[in-house]
Amino acid sequence: MSHDPDCIFCKIIKGEIPCFKLYEDERTLSFMDINPVNPGHALIIPKFHTPNFFEIPLDWLADTMTTTQKIARAVQKTLEPHGLNILQANGPGAAQSVFHLHMHVVPRGEDDGVTMNWGIRPGNMDEIGALSERIRANIA
Amino acid sequence: MSHDPDCIFCKIIKGEIPCFKLYEDERTLSFMDINPVNPGHALIIPKFHTPNFFEIPLDWLADTMTTTQKIARAVQKTLEPHGLNILQANGPGAAQSVFHLHMHVVPRGEDDGVTMNWGIRPGNMDEIGALSERIRANIA
Repeated sequence: MSHDPDCIFCKIIKGEIPCFKLYEDERTLSFMDINPVNPGHALIIPKFHTPNFFEIPLDWLADTMTTTQKIARAVQKTLEPHGLNILQANGPGAAQSVFHLHMHVVPRGEDDGVTMNWGIRPGNMDEIGALSERIRANIA
Repeated sequence: MSHDPDCIFCKIIKGEIPCFKLYEDERTLSFMDINPVNPGHALIIPKFHTPNFFEIPLDWLADTMTTTQKIARAVQKTLEPHGLNILQANGPGAAQSVFHLHMHVVPRGEDDGVTMNWGIRPGNMDEIGALSERIRANIA
């Protein structure tokens, strides 16, 4: 599979950088966003370096979405949020920060005022780790 | 295919309500959002009534995402926006307004300040119609 040696998500796939892993299979990986816009914010990536939504091969996209549904269901079951968004960003106007396609699962509070381009704000690692265990227990 | 007689998107699929159609195949339909958060805002739906991301069968999800990539590429080519988001909403906290799963393709301007739950603001029908023709011409 294609990897970019300078890509932070490729390094996570290869285990060179740690993550709060939620799920992994042959073609996809899911882990907690450590700069969560809300608690339970999770990411899903293909194990294939592709920069954005325009370029990802369709078979990788299908596999990425299958895992995204699996994680969205587990986050929903764990937190029962008031809403949940699936979001993907391309380019600077969408504040794309890592150029390896990733799907966001974003639990939503009532009137939480989340903008499409949220600022990068580091979360509490202990809280993220504890939450990752609860979500992982709900993955079907 | 499963339809809900009271669902506005099922009515669009059946041609009972008009739309600015961008693309259609056996399993999916894409058309302009008539309450665009930005010009070029497009929707993609499965021709299968399923309320949200949690419940859509995986084969319908894959087909919906294939069409979403096709439309995202055409919107990107037509408008060359500063960014582009793929967004999908579930539940009141995410301001889901139609309970038939739909993917949003949202072109982004630089610092456009778009929030995740934008208000419903009707667009100019002539402008949306003209833009739909330009986007349609760029669907590969």
